[in-house]
Amino acid sequence: MDLHPLAERLSSRAARYDASGDFPQEDFDDLREAGLLGLMTPRHLGGSGASFAEYTDVAIELGSGAGATALIFNMHASVTGALAQTPDELVRQFGGAESFFAFRDRVLKAAAEGALYAVAMSERGAGSRLSQVRTAYERTGSGFRVTGSKTFVSGAGHADAYLVAARDSGSEEPKISYFLVPAGPGVDVQQTWDSLGMRATGSHDLHLDVEVGEDALVGGIEGAALLLAQVMPQWLVASYAAVYVGVARSVLHHGVRHLTERGLHTLPMVRARLGRADVQVAAAELVVREAARRVTGDPGSPETNRWVWRAKLIAGDTAAQVAFSVLEAAGASATRRGHPLERLYRDARCGALQPATSDVCADWLGAAALGEDPDGQARW
Amino acid sequence: MDLHPLAERLSSRAARYDASGDFPQEDFDDLREAGLLGLMTPRHLGGSGASFAEYTDVAIELGSGAGATALIFNMHASVTGALAQTPDELVRQFGGAESFFAFRDRVLKAAAEGALYAVAMSERGAGSRLSQVRTAYERTGSGFRVTGSKTFVSGAGHADAYLVAARDSGSEEPKISYFLVPAGPGVDVQQTWDSLGMRATGSHDLHLDVEVGEDALVGGIEGAALLLAQVMPQWLVASYAAVYVGVARSVLHHGVRHLTERGLHTLPMVRARLGRADVQVAAAELVVREAARRVTGDPGSPETNRWVWRAKLIAGDTAAQVAFSVLEAAGASATRRGHPLERLYRDARCGALQPATSDVCADWLGAAALGEDPDGQARW
Amino acid sequence: MDLHPLAERLSSRAARYDASGDFPQEDFDDLREAGLLGLMTPRHLGGSGASFAEYTDVAIELGSGAGATALIFNMHASVTGALAQTPDELVRQFGGAESFFAFRDRVLKAAAEGALYAVAMSERGAGSRLSQVRTAYERTGSGFRVTGSKTFVSGAGHADAYLVAARDSGSEEPKISYFLVPAGPGVDVQQTWDSLGMRATGSHDLHLDVEVGEDALVGGIEGAALLLAQVMPQWLVASYAAVYVGVARSVLHHGVRHLTERGLHTLPMVRARLGRADVQVAAAELVVREAARRVTGDPGSPETNRWVWRAKLIAGDTAAQVAFSVLEAAGASATRRGHPLERLYRDARCGALQPATSDVCADWLGAAALGEDPDGQARW
Amino acid sequence: MDLHPLAERLSSRAARYDASGDFPQEDFDDLREAGLLGLMTPRHLGGSGASFAEYTDVAIELGSGAGATALIFNMHASVTGALAQTPDELVRQFGGAESFFAFRDRVLKAAAEGALYAVAMSERGAGSRLSQVRTAYERTGSGFRVTGSKTFVSGAGHADAYLVAARDSGSEEPKISYFLVPAGPGVDVQQTWDSLGMRATGSHDLHLDVEVGEDALVGGIEGAALLLAQVMPQWLVASYAAVYVGVARSVLHHGVRHLTERGLHTLPMVRARLGRADVQVAAAELVVREAARRVTGDPGSPETNRWVWRAKLIAGDTAAQVAFSVLEAAGASATRRGHPLERLYRDARCGALQPATSDVCADWLGAAALGEDPDGQARW
Repeated sequence: MDLHPLAERLSSRAARYDASGDFPQEDFDDLREAGLLGLMTPRHLGGSGASFAEYTDVAIELGSGAGATALIFNMHASVTGALAQTPDELVRQFGGAESFFAFRDRVLKAAAEGALYAVAMSERGAGSRLSQVRTAYERTGSGFRVTGSKTFVSGAGHADAYLVAARDSGSEEPKISYFLVPAGPGVDVQQTWDSLGMRATGSHDLHLDVEVGEDALVGGIEGAALLLAQVMPQWLVASYAAVYVGVARSVLHHGVRHLTERGLHTLPMVRARLGRADVQVAAAELVVREAARRVTGDPGSPETNRWVWRAKLIAGDTAAQVAFSVLEAAGASATRRGHPLERLYRDARCGALQPATSDVCADWLGAAALGEDPDGQARW
Repeated sequence: MDLHPLAERLSSRAARYDASGDFPQEDFDDLREAGLLGLMTPRHLGGSGASFAEYTDVAIELGSGAGATALIFNMHASVTGALAQTPDELVRQFGGAESFFAFRDRVLKAAAEGALYAVAMSERGAGSRLSQVRTAYERTGSGFRVTGSKTFVSGAGHADAYLVAARDSGSEEPKISYFLVPAGPGVDVQQTWDSLGMRATGSHDLHLDVEVGEDALVGGIEGAALLLAQVMPQWLVASYAAVYVGVARSVLHHGVRHLTERGLHTLPMVRARLGRADVQVAAAELVVREAARRVTGDPGSPETNRWVWRAKLIAGDTAAQVAFSVLEAAGASATRRGHPLERLYRDARCGALQPATSDVCADWLGAAALGEDPDGQARW
Repeated sequence: MDLHPLAERLSSRAARYDASGDFPQEDFDDLREAGLLGLMTPRHLGGSGASFAEYTDVAIELGSGAGATALIFNMHASVTGALAQTPDELVRQFGGAESFFAFRDRVLKAAAEGALYAVAMSERGAGSRLSQVRTAYERTGSGFRVTGSKTFVSGAGHADAYLVAARDSGSEEPKISYFLVPAGPGVDVQQTWDSLGMRATGSHDLHLDVEVGEDALVGGIEGAALLLAQVMPQWLVASYAAVYVGVARSVLHHGVRHLTERGLHTLPMVRARLGRADVQVAAAELVVREAARRVTGDPGSPETNRWVWRAKLIAGDTAAQVAFSVLEAAGASATRRGHPLERLYRDARCGALQPATSDVCADWLGAAALGEDPDGQARW
Repeated sequence: MDLHPLAERLSSRAARYDASGDFPQEDFDDLREAGLLGLMTPRHLGGSGASFAEYTDVAIELGSGAGATALIFNMHASVTGALAQTPDELVRQFGGAESFFAFRDRVLKAAAEGALYAVAMSERGAGSRLSQVRTAYERTGSGFRVTGSKTFVSGAGHADAYLVAARDSGSEEPKISYFLVPAGPGVDVQQTWDSLGMRATGSHDLHLDVEVGEDALVGGIEGAALLLAQVMPQWLVASYAAVYVGVARSVLHHGVRHLTERGLHTLPMVRARLGRADVQVAAAELVVREAARRVTGDPGSPETNRWVWRAKLIAGDTAAQVAFSVLEAAGASATRRGHPLERLYRDARCGALQPATSDVCADWLGAAALGEDPDGQARW
C-alpha cells in the first residue's frame, strides 16, 4: 500500500491539530478507513498480520505526515502488536489462562474493525518506571478492581480501551500486571496535556476506579509486566523510533522547500547544514529499519535488543538535531507559528525525552558494549 | 541599582505574556517607573547617561527575567543609545544639519520622561539587509514622505516613534537613510507576529505612508545608514547578545530548580549536562561583557568590532544549546506549556537566527581571523 | 571466508608498522596468500569476482585490523575493481580500443597471481582535483610518454604498476586520461611520507618520466577520467569509507578492552561515551553497507551515488569522532605510543581529510537534497 | 616584559623537541636567562613576585610557543607559586614548623637563581588521586625515608628537586604529606614517556628510595595534601588551563598561516571553521583569565573555585576541539609530521585528559550549579 497520499493528508492537517491540541479525528478516520487499525491483527482475525518491520514502514510514513498522529497510532500498534506477537507457548509457560486467548482474539478482531487502544503506563512521580507504579489492583469476586492515576496517556478520551500497568495491592514485592481496561464509567480523562510538541497526541491524565473482568488481565498472568519490558523491549523502547525518523524526514522535506522558495539554497552554510542533516537522517532510518528487521526475524535476542536501543537513541537525537540545524538554516521567517519547521522544531525535541531517554539509552548501550548485562540494572 | 527584584517581576509574568503574545505592558510600566527608558539619555537631559557596558548589565538582568521584554527594551536602547553616543563631530563631519542636535535632545529627553522607541528596519524579502530596503522616501516641501512596509518591528503599536530605514526614491545608487517617524496616522500596525519564541515582542508588520518633518531625518544626513552599520556595529549586532546571555542564565536557574524539585539532580548525566552548560554560559557572559567594555572604552576600532561579532555569535549559540541540553536533562515533565524551560527552549532558539545570524557571524569572524577586511563584503 | 583471524594478525603488527612507517610486508604476504589481491578479479581469470558489497565486507574487516594496510589494499581494489566492473559496452560506446580487453584481462589475472597495483592521482597544488592534473602525456611512435610528479601514492615502491592520471599535453582543453604504468626505470619513488596517521601506507611521491605502450592507456580511451569520476564515484569516494568503519570498530574494541582492564567501565560518563560511540559506529557501518549494496545492484544511479557520498561523509566523521571521545574516556594512560587507542586517534583523523573531504561531501549532499545536480559543479 | 620573542624561539624549536622527545634544554636556558624560573619567587628573595594572574599571562604566551615546555614550566610554577602564596598564618594554624619558613625561602631563592622543580604526584593505578597514593614515608632519626614510584613526572631527570606526595606508612587513615626531595642518589628516572602529544615534557617515571631531612616535609605539616587540593585548587586544576589556551591560540595562528599559503582561505567552510574556532578560543581565554584574576584577588573562595574548575574544563576542551576542526580545514597536507598543526592536533588532545579530566570537571561544576558542595565527594 502506498501510504504517501495518506501521509500528505495528515501533513495538511498537522498545523491545525497542533494549534488546537485536539485529537486528530480526521486523521484517524483516514487510518481506520485504510484499515491501519488492524495492521497488527492477524489475517485470520481480519487484520493485516504485519510484522514489526512492516509496522516500522507504516510508522515512518505516518510520522513524516504528522508526528502526533503517528505517536497515537504507535501506542495502538504497541498494544495490538504485543498481543498478536507474544507466542502462545510463552503465555502458557508462564502459567497464562487459556481463556486469555479468546479474549485476545476478540481484542485484535475489534481493532481490525476499527477499535482504538491506548497505553496507560506512566505515572506522575514514577515516570515510566514500571517498578514504581502505584496504580493498584485487587481481586474481586468476578475479576479485579483497578484504582489509580496515569499520565501521558496518548489518545486519552478517544480510545476504546487502555492497557493499564498496575501493582497487586496485596503483595509485598512489586508484582506489576497489565490490564486492558475498557473506556467507560470509572475511567475518567483529565485534560492536562498542553505541551511544547506533539500537541495533538492529547496525552492527558487518566483516573481509574473501575472493575474489570477476569480476562482483562493480559495473558491471564500476574506480574509479567517487568519481564515483558526486557524480553520484548521493541514496543516499549523502539516503536517510537520509527515515528521520529518520519519527523526527521519531514524536517528535510520542509527545509528543502522553504530554502528553495526563499532563495537561500545557494548559501554554502545552508547547503552544508542540509547535507549533514541528510546523512544523519539516512543513517537513523537505516538503524531503525535494521532494528525492525531483526525484531521480526530474531525477536528478543541480545543482539536484536542492542539494535532496538540503538534505534531509540539515534532516532530521538537525530530528529532533534536536524530540526535544530535546519531551522537555523531556514532563518527567522520559518519560526512563524503555522510554519511546518516551527512545529517540527517542537515536535522533534520530544523523542529523546520519551522513555527510554537518550541518556538512559546511552548507558544501556555502553553497558552492552562493555560486555555487561545491560538489563542487570533496573531500568523500568 | 539592584535590578534583580525587577527581573523577578518580569519572570513572574513571562509565561502569561508568552501565552497571549500581548505586549508586556506591566513590564514596561515597571521599566518606566524604574527610569530605565532613560537609561541611555544623557544626565543633563534627565537620563542615566549609561555606557554600552552599563546597558549590557541591564539587558542581561532583564533578559534573565523575560527575554521578549528585554528584546523590546534593547530596540529602545539601540535608538536612544545610538543617538546619544554618536559624536557631534562625526555628525558635522558628514554634513549633518545643526537643527538635528535640538531634535535629538528632544527625543532623548522624551525617553527619559517615558517615551518608547522601536526599530523598523527589516523588510520581507530583504530581511535585515539595509542595502536591499525598498521602503522609499522623497523630499516634500516641508520634509519627507516615507512609504513602504516593514516587518519584525518589536513593540509595534506600543512605541511612540519608529526608527525607519528607507531609500531615496530619486537616487539610482542605494542611498539609505534613517528617519524617526512618530506613531500616528499613516503608521499602521498589522498583527502578523505569532512566533515560536520571544512571542511577547509583538514584532508585527508596520505599513508606512506618512509625511515627516525635516528634522526626522536622523543626523540630518542622507545615506548614512550603511556606514553606521559598519562603524557602530554594536547596536545592530551585539545588543541582542546581552539579552540572550540573560536567557541562557535563566535556563540554568530554572534547570537547577526543576531538577532539584524532581530529585533528578543526583543522576550523573544530569550533573554533566548542567556542568557543561554552566561553563558555556559563564564563557558567553564574559565575551559579551568584554565586547561591551571595549565598545565603551574604544568604540569602533577593528579589535572592538571583532569582540562585538564574537558576542553575537556566542550568545545566540550558547542560549540555544544550553536550552536544548537542559530541557533534555529535565525530561518530559518540563515540556508542559507554562513551564519556564518550555518557553526558554523556544525563546533561546531565536538568538542565532536574528541578524547577523550565527552563520554570518562565523563568516565575518573567519574573514577577520584570516586578516581580511570582514566588512569588505556587503553584509547589510 | 572468515577474515577475523587475518585481521587479528594485522592488528598484532599495526603498532610496529605505525612506528617505523615501513610498508606492511608481512600483512601483504598474508593478503596474497589468502588470495585477496585477486578479490576483484573475475573468477574466469583466477580471482574471486567479488562485488563492491563483498569488497566492503573485506575492507571493513581489514580496516579493523590495520587501517593503513586496508588503505593500500583499497587502492589495489579500486584499480582492479574499476577495471573488472566497467562494462565492455561502455568502453566500446566511448570508442575504446578492442586491444584494451586483452590488456585488462592480463592485468586482472596478474592481480589474482599476486600483483599489487597502486593509484597515482593526486599532485601537489592540485590535490585530488583531476581537472587540475599537470602530469602530462604525449603520443610517441609506440605509445605514450608520461611525465610529471604525483603525491599521496599509497604503497609507492611496492606496487607492480600505478594507475596514473595525466593530461594530454597537446590539447587545449583538459583531456585527462588514465594509464597503467609498470614499476621500473623512469618511475621513481621519493620518500616523503611521514604522517600523523595511517603511517604505514607509505604514501610517498612518485616521479614519472617514462614511456608506456599503447595498451597502457586505460580503456584505450583518452579523456575518460573525469567522466569516470562521476559515473563510478564509488571507487573514488566511498571505497575508503569501509576502511574507516573498520577503524571505528577497532576504536570500540580497544576502548572496551582498555576501560575494562583499568576498571574505568563503571564510570557513568565512560559508559555514556561508549554507548554513544556504539550507535555512531553501527549507523556508519549500515550506511557504508547500504551504499555498497546499491553500488552492487544499481551502479551509477543518482540514488546510489547519494549513498556513496553519504558513506564517505559518515565513515570519515564517525571514525574521527569516536576516536576523539573514546580516547578521552580512556584517559592519559592510553596516550602512550604503542597503545592501540593512541594510533587509532591519529589514524581515524585522516578519513575526513581524504578526498572527497567531509566538507565537500556535505556540500554535494546538500546540493542533492536541494534537488540540484550535485555534479553540476566541478568537484574533481 | 614582552614574551612574544621568547615564544617565537620556543615555537621554532617545538617540532624538533616533539620529534626527539628530548627535554627542551634550549628553551629552559632561555627561560632561565629571562628570569622566569623566579617568576613566583617573592621580590625580596630575588624573584618577580608574580601573582597567579601574572603567571597566567606568562603561561599562555609560553604555551602558544611550545606546549610541552609550558607544561614543565607550569609544574615548576606550581611548586614555587604554592610555596610562595601559602600564607604563613595558615601554616602556623595547622601546626607547621617554624623551621619550614627558612627552608621555603631557600627553595624560592634557588628558583630565582635558576633551580627547576618538578611534581611527582601521580602513580600507576592511582592516577592523580592523592588519597590513593602508595608511595610511603616513615620517620627516621634525622627526617624521613620516602619509598615508592611515581609516574607522569614532567621534567624528570632535569629538575633539581621534586615535590612528592606520600602517605605515612605508620598511619591507618590516609595521611598524605608533601616532601620536596632533591635530585640525587635514590631518586631514579626510568624513561617511560613516549606519548601521543606533549612529547617533550619527558614525563617519565620516578623511583624513590631516599632519605630526606626534617625540613623537606613541606610546611612542616603532615597530612596536609588533601586539604591543600581543596583550598588551593588553582595549582592542581587550573594552572594547566593557561597552557592549553596558548596551544589553542597557536592552532589559530598556524591555521591562518597554512590556509592563506595554500589559498584555501576563500572556501566558505574553511572561513566558518576559523570563525567558530576564533570565538571559542577567545571565550576560553577570557574564562582562564577571569579565574586567574579571582585567584589573585580572592583566593580559595567558593566562587573563585568555580572559575578555577571552569577554566580547566573549557581550556582543555577548546584546545582539542579547535585543533580537530582547524586540521580538518587545513587538509591532508597539514598532517605531515613536522607541520605545526600535526603536532598541535596531538598536543591539544592532552589537556582534557590531564587531571581533573573534563568529565570530572563537568561533574564538579554540575554539583556546584546544583547548590551542592562539589568537594563533598572525594575527588583527589
